[in-house]
Amino acid sequence: MIVPEPQSAPGEGEAESLDVWGFRDTHFDVSENGHVVIRGNRYELSGKELPRFLPWVREVLEVNLDAREVHTPHYPTEIPEPILPRELLDALKTLLSPAQIDTNGETRLRHGHGHTQEEMYAIKYAQLGRTPDVVVYPDSEEQVTGLVEVTKKHGATLIPYGGGTNVTDALRCFPNERRSIISVDMRRMNRVLWIDRANMLACIQAGAVGRHIMAELKKYGVTMGHEPDSVEFSTLGGWIATNASGMKKNKYGNIEDLVLDVNVVTAAGTLARSSCSPRESVGMDLRRLIFGSEGALGIVTSAVVKIFPLPEAQQYGSVVFPSFEDGFKFMYELTRESTPPASVRLVDNLQFQFGLALKPKSDDALAKLKSRIEKFFVINLKGFQPDRMVACTLVFEGTRAEVQQQQKAVYRIAARHGGLKAGSEGGRRGYQLTYSIAYIRDFLMSYYIIAESFETSVAWSDALDLCANVKRRLVEEYARRKLPGKPFVTARVTQVYRTGVCIYFYFGFYYKGIPNPHEVYLELENVARDEILKSGGSLSHHHGIGKLRRAFLPRIMSGAALQWKRDLKKSLDPDNLFGAGNQDLDVR
Amino acid sequence: MIVPEPQSAPGEGEAESLDVWGFRDTHFDVSENGHVVIRGNRYELSGKELPRFLPWVREVLEVNLDAREVHTPHYPTEIPEPILPRELLDALKTLLSPAQIDTNGETRLRHGHGHTQEEMYAIKYAQLGRTPDVVVYPDSEEQVTGLVEVTKKHGATLIPYGGGTNVTDALRCFPNERRSIISVDMRRMNRVLWIDRANMLACIQAGAVGRHIMAELKKYGVTMGHEPDSVEFSTLGGWIATNASGMKKNKYGNIEDLVLDVNVVTAAGTLARSSCSPRESVGMDLRRLIFGSEGALGIVTSAVVKIFPLPEAQQYGSVVFPSFEDGFKFMYELTRESTPPASVRLVDNLQFQFGLALKPKSDDALAKLKSRIEKFFVINLKGFQPDRMVACTLVFEGTRAEVQQQQKAVYRIAARHGGLKAGSEGGRRGYQLTYSIAYIRDFLMSYYIIAESFETSVAWSDALDLCANVKRRLVEEYARRKLPGKPFVTARVTQVYRTGVCIYFYFGFYYKGIPNPHEVYLELENVARDEILKSGGSLSHHHGIGKLRRAFLPRIMSGAALQWKRDLKKSLDPDNLFGAGNQDLDVR
Repeated sequence: MIVPEPQSAPGEGEAESLDVWGFRDTHFDVSENGHVVIRGNRYELSGKELPRFLPWVREVLEVNLDAREVHTPHYPTEIPEPILPRELLDALKTLLSPAQIDTNGETRLRHGHGHTQEEMYAIKYAQLGRTPDVVVYPDSEEQVTGLVEVTKKHGATLIPYGGGTNVTDALRCFPNERRSIISVDMRRMNRVLWIDRANMLACIQAGAVGRHIMAELKKYGVTMGHEPDSVEFSTLGGWIATNASGMKKNKYGNIEDLVLDVNVVTAAGTLARSSCSPRESVGMDLRRLIFGSEGALGIVTSAVVKIFPLPEAQQYGSVVFPSFEDGFKFMYELTRESTPPASVRLVDNLQFQFGLALKPKSDDALAKLKSRIEKFFVINLKGFQPDRMVACTLVFEGTRAEVQQQQKAVYRIAARHGGLKAGSEGGRRGYQLTYSIAYIRDFLMSYYIIAESFETSVAWSDALDLCANVKRRLVEEYARRKLPGKPFVTARVTQVYRTGVCIYFYFGFYYKGIPNPHEVYLELENVARDEILKSGGSLSHHHGIGKLRRAFLPRIMSGAALQWKRDLKKSLDPDNLFGAGNQDLDVR
Repeated sequence: MIVPEPQSAPGEGEAESLDVWGFRDTHFDVSENGHVVIRGNRYELSGKELPRFLPWVREVLEVNLDAREVHTPHYPTEIPEPILPRELLDALKTLLSPAQIDTNGETRLRHGHGHTQEEMYAIKYAQLGRTPDVVVYPDSEEQVTGLVEVTKKHGATLIPYGGGTNVTDALRCFPNERRSIISVDMRRMNRVLWIDRANMLACIQAGAVGRHIMAELKKYGVTMGHEPDSVEFSTLGGWIATNASGMKKNKYGNIEDLVLDVNVVTAAGTLARSSCSPRESVGMDLRRLIFGSEGALGIVTSAVVKIFPLPEAQQYGSVVFPSFEDGFKFMYELTRESTPPASVRLVDNLQFQFGLALKPKSDDALAKLKSRIEKFFVINLKGFQPDRMVACTLVFEGTRAEVQQQQKAVYRIAARHGGLKAGSEGGRRGYQLTYSIAYIRDFLMSYYIIAESFETSVAWSDALDLCANVKRRLVEEYARRKLPGKPFVTARVTQVYRTGVCIYFYFGFYYKGIPNPHEVYLELENVARDEILKSGGSLSHHHGIGKLRRAFLPRIMSGAALQWKRDLKKSLDPDNLFGAGNQDLDVR
């Protein structure tokens, strides 16, 4: 049993922005020559100019976007005065050190939202309405227990906070919550408590951030294998509370497959087990309720997770297909005939173009030539159409033999569907892009473009129709509202299962002249969700419900099921101490 | 979407015994020459004499068992008078046809127990105490809903009944239950409702029996892959309610991996979903509570399960190892270096001998010679010791290439640990034996031998010690009580996970002269369970808790967790309509 040292506090270089996504050292910008550039040097694209990006945006949105016309953010917009009775603050001070209690306005503001478009728009151009009244940083399960007791005694409410990357308004506070809201930031509980190599398990505190978990486990030659796109910032506790999905789930499983045990501080005490078994049948498993509980039942303090040896081999790959349908059929057969590689993703044509538009200016004449020759080959000799072709990116992980075998199977099946191997570089670039692309939304918002992603899961046989229906419906509704230019709507398949897929949409539009774009966006997102449900899709594959999607719950489950959830919440947290109000569970 | 025809009712040839395990056409017997024989022709061993069996039993138990001394069963022992008010019976008659209501004593008796040793002893030599007052056979979800309403209106209680194979006293009625007990036998709800080959899903009613599910799906070239040892009799609903594990879980997963959706009639209405997704994050998943709920929350009426194409290739295999420790290390490395085959099981030396003792008399001189030569080779040339050697049995399923590759890996790793390939016949026989061996317990009970199995799951690093501790403790406690002869106690590893294993124990002893052997057994089983928990094992891998193990719950989970379960039950079933009282959930 290995007991790693406590991790040192994150250095200055890891500081995160409060007003936009990500690390403070990174942001998109427009350089003097009018080209988009990513500042900093953290990512592969950092410091590079992207000359094709703005022209492409103008073309797709059919708007005359002017890079000099900036919608200046007013961050922070008004922060409401805290509701924080002296007795409550005194009680917190008895429990915690001064450094563990923060009443600073911007800190409170940051803890009152995640990264939905409406939240990010609100903190820059509108108003959040209500924020936590105090942010606390417990450093032990005992302190979390103490916080729950203080909360109960003083008639307050708690909202757990992990990495702040939520995208379902789960962190958002109710405007009419009159109780004091305590945001419980778990960042100090970030230790890998033990690593058991014999049984391939690790016990990790819930506030540990994905990138730190990866780095810490790597020191011991192991990995948890869980890499959601937010892995740089999101936490183990957040993964459990939202039932997260990792990019490489084909190899390692989703979060519910990875977590064997979990400790949770609830209104009634701590849910804990005396030992942790590989698998068991010991009655209703309450721990399973915590997955997707979105802060409504308690605060996860630690979890026992499966770990894996670092893979002997890792290879990226990419394949281009003549059309989305071809790529989709390839994926389907891949899940039928073979064990899919750790990750396989398929972007549609618009997203493929988006990727090309983000290619940096190359000074390398040889690379330019190579790129032109490849293009000529694909377009002219193979008959691919630039406005139809799509790309599939792949990550292979395992022993060398496994990776080789998977590669063989993948490319064989791909070839049957007109797929052309497009090299590992394209694959690697696709996955790297995920991290830098996350910064683009806040950048575009300053140029009057509002955008957001949303996702679903759906059976194979309904998936293509679902994509087409959602795209068509959004374009129609957008036109019907006479909004400016054209919307940007694109889909990718990000996960495959034997029974279906996860579809991830991006939707955005130019909002200059629209007074309340975040509300218009929300309306259209709800229209898309309606179409998703009509097409057989789920309410969410991995983002969750939060407050954003809770109005749709009656469409997916019976009245008895909804009532069960409410009864259960009422019985387990009768005072609604965990009052985030997600999933319509703010009953008192 | 395929919609299979309703299945015809099981024929006479499928009739099951009421007083003992299994099909009515099969039972162990002693032939005129004093040899054990299995009557009937259903199984491979059926009709064959097993001359070595009784001598071996005498040797192991160190008792002078006389095959002419029979402990004559008095089945059925006293069946209590039903508590069945006329109004309740009338209400049932309004809801159901006469053929769907049974008040026959033996039927009621059969529905009041599963197959624990104390239940089987009770119905033959003692008394059950309380049985259901009426057995009903609903044929639709509507009728189940109606039954719940009738139960509520008339202040009765319900216990769902699937295959009756439970081994945790989960079906047993409380002696002091004064309400009418309605046993809801689900056998009429046995249809495969639809098969969706495109998405590899099937919707199956909860009363469908494992062997029928297999046969029905096979017609369409698919399988669910779930094969618990009770697959001949246990039902889909029972698998979910006990969180069952299938023999081939390495390939297909355990029940919680196989079920995507479930319909449940509860005290508050029907839990149901409008569609079924490959994977989702839509908040706390109530359906997960149903796994392992043991009838305490509602009645499962149907489930959507994953299906798989029938495997292209199936191969059995077996390997003998010099010792249990060698075989165990082989299994450990197998889970480290390779994808384990569909099933891999390791028996200890005593169980290996047990298998040999069940070999039928062979008239085939060549086979005899071959067997002797093999024995000579293993014992004399390879230095295996008959009282130490063990066997591992294997099932490989998949494409031909997969099977070949797995076989290569398995035998390569086995060789490193002194394993000798012992042929596919030995493997096949081992798995076949599972079904006929289930009959042996009732046979032995008539000859004053009481025996039972119990299981646990445990981390790899604790497993060998756990096996040794349990065996030592049972032998010690048995001797301390000055009970006759020696006990029979043996272990096998029946499932492997990356994080640990399932250990399955058999324990039995000769009880002639002991007035209350079923109580002595229970006391010793509890001693074994104490040792299991002390050694880091779980309370159950797949049998469940029921009433048999509920006293141990406070040792595995925190007080808050236990209170949560009770609060949850109280809130979801305030009248305790589902009053089986398993897991200490009989709170009112």
